[in-house]
Amino acid sequence: MSEQWWQQGCQAPDMLVRNKARARQQQLTKPAGSLGQLEQLAIQLATLQGNQRPSVERISIAIFAGDHGVVAEGISVFPQEVTGQMLRNFVGGGAAINVLARQLGANLEVVDLGTATPLEELPGVRHVRVGAGTQNFLHGPAMTAAQLLIALEAGRDSVRRAQQTGAELFIGGEMGIGNTTAATALACLLLDCGAVDLVGPGTGLDAAGIAHKAAVIEAALILHGPAIHEPIDALQRLGGFEIAALVGAYLACAQQGIAVLVDGFICSVAALLAVRLNPDCRDWLLFAHCGAEPGHRRVLKELQGEPLLELGLRLGEGSGAALAVPLLQLACSLHNQMATFAEAAVAERAP
Amino acid sequence: MSEQWWQQGCQAPDMLVRNKARARQQQLTKPAGSLGQLEQLAIQLATLQGNQRPSVERISIAIFAGDHGVVAEGISVFPQEVTGQMLRNFVGGGAAINVLARQLGANLEVVDLGTATPLEELPGVRHVRVGAGTQNFLHGPAMTAAQLLIALEAGRDSVRRAQQTGAELFIGGEMGIGNTTAATALACLLLDCGAVDLVGPGTGLDAAGIAHKAAVIEAALILHGPAIHEPIDALQRLGGFEIAALVGAYLACAQQGIAVLVDGFICSVAALLAVRLNPDCRDWLLFAHCGAEPGHRRVLKELQGEPLLELGLRLGEGSGAALAVPLLQLACSLHNQMATFAEAAVAERAP
Repeated sequence: MSEQWWQQGCQAPDMLVRNKARARQQQLTKPAGSLGQLEQLAIQLATLQGNQRPSVERISIAIFAGDHGVVAEGISVFPQEVTGQMLRNFVGGGAAINVLARQLGANLEVVDLGTATPLEELPGVRHVRVGAGTQNFLHGPAMTAAQLLIALEAGRDSVRRAQQTGAELFIGGEMGIGNTTAATALACLLLDCGAVDLVGPGTGLDAAGIAHKAAVIEAALILHGPAIHEPIDALQRLGGFEIAALVGAYLACAQQGIAVLVDGFICSVAALLAVRLNPDCRDWLLFAHCGAEPGHRRVLKELQGEPLLELGLRLGEGSGAALAVPLLQLACSLHNQMATFAEAAVAERAP
Repeated sequence: MSEQWWQQGCQAPDMLVRNKARARQQQLTKPAGSLGQLEQLAIQLATLQGNQRPSVERISIAIFAGDHGVVAEGISVFPQEVTGQMLRNFVGGGAAINVLARQLGANLEVVDLGTATPLEELPGVRHVRVGAGTQNFLHGPAMTAAQLLIALEAGRDSVRRAQQTGAELFIGGEMGIGNTTAATALACLLLDCGAVDLVGPGTGLDAAGIAHKAAVIEAALILHGPAIHEPIDALQRLGGFEIAALVGAYLACAQQGIAVLVDGFICSVAALLAVRLNPDCRDWLLFAHCGAEPGHRRVLKELQGEPLLELGLRLGEGSGAALAVPLLQLACSLHNQMATFAEAAVAERAP
């Protein structure tokens, strides 16, 4: 296979700006380090934006939605129709991410990558329709190689639109009944661990439901494991259209030089896949939160991601990332607007 | 001693509104519980505001500043003059809390409770000047009973002004070189534990400095312990003017029915004192973050407080509380604006 677009080079963070931003943090009127994670956050945003005065005002949120054939195995408490119903809810403006995007003044786009029952044309939704949901990966690959390419490109296209609006931050969100099952299977493969180590309740399974979900994932790993030689194989065999779109979006952000704020468990698995496909993209990823799904912490650890929030979130839709945006904005404001010791005539230490 | 103002009744949270807010959370288009701590946060704000559609738009921040005689023992890396210098920085608008208050559109007032060298009149600062800093509590009580009353009332007066502006949330902040030492001594007394269990670096002590600070606190506990029979005695003997003002402010908020967002370690110790003085005030306290000072977690545990952030903050000034305000606002927006399952025609569970 010749080199694919996602293997091409990522933008290089600006180390000169990083050094200047670090020096400025040391001069602001506060004990060194007293703003904790927010100091590194401001430095990182300055580095990625190549701007000593970073800014997170223009925000693009893209929600990728798709259905999962593995729902036939009874691994979700919600029926599969909810994926499409939630797409309509996004159009109506009543979902959590709609509320958050409005409050943040963020640009929100919704991409339909394929529901089990194809939806009518919805106003404002981009219908890519890679397929009528993925195939049940308990019996075969979730998608074809051609479908995988289309889904990855759908993510890249979303980032191109974000770039045209001058986005300073990209957030990917997901909606897809059954997608914690796909994400957990992928994480097991990438982290080389068993389903019982990572599996969780998703949107609300009980203990018996979680055990069944783990068994489904284990069976899929036995079926597909021998055929998976590269991370891209795992995405095709165990992934979802919306997960592939997230992977494509994250890789495109790194190539275009747009900082990414990664949402919850499913997005973090997509981020891990992106890093395995092109390790340089890691620089461009910020992690919003550690959610309630037990595998999330393991995936973040593998990525050496330091989440900003830990509120027991497990909604998806990009909502956890949206909730962390004000911390990025305030970290920038503090970095840009605080007085230095010299400006304010404040003593730095005891003589 | 006859009943003091702070022992008088607190407002009762509205349990009818709480039940309605809980029911609404169950109907919003998301898996039950998937917004984690933000769900309880919205319910709590609704309950305290007696409003099914809570709001955190009008925010009052009061910074209480004062000096500490115990600084003579060499327990801080910053010289005592920094308290006054930072008051001037607050006036100049260059401190962290200035930046945050501007971004939040919050009302910010600064109360000078007494610096070691009295300051000139500063524009916009309320100079209460209870004394030229507290006395060194290694040799006697930090303040007189009369000074304690004035400081408590300064906090209450600040809340009255906040109420006149229609504040929906009150944040108290503090500035005072040496005040982690005073707060740690108070926490040791209230939690009945040794200084080594709670002591920390404050604004940046090294290991030797921390050990010395612990020894100073232990000596103070030996000196004052036998004379402390009530929490109010602890505040007089080991406290600071700004800590007493915070205690008075928190108690006044509970009496006036204004929700409080408690900042860092020092504010949390003041909150614990307020609860010991009048347990009903606990209902009115929300906890913004768990900071870097090691005693903070212990104090929060004693208060059964569930902090929203854990970012390694240790700045004070109310900054950690200000950083958490957007989470309160977004929790309210989600609660108020999301569609219900019925409104959006989304299925609640599998049939």
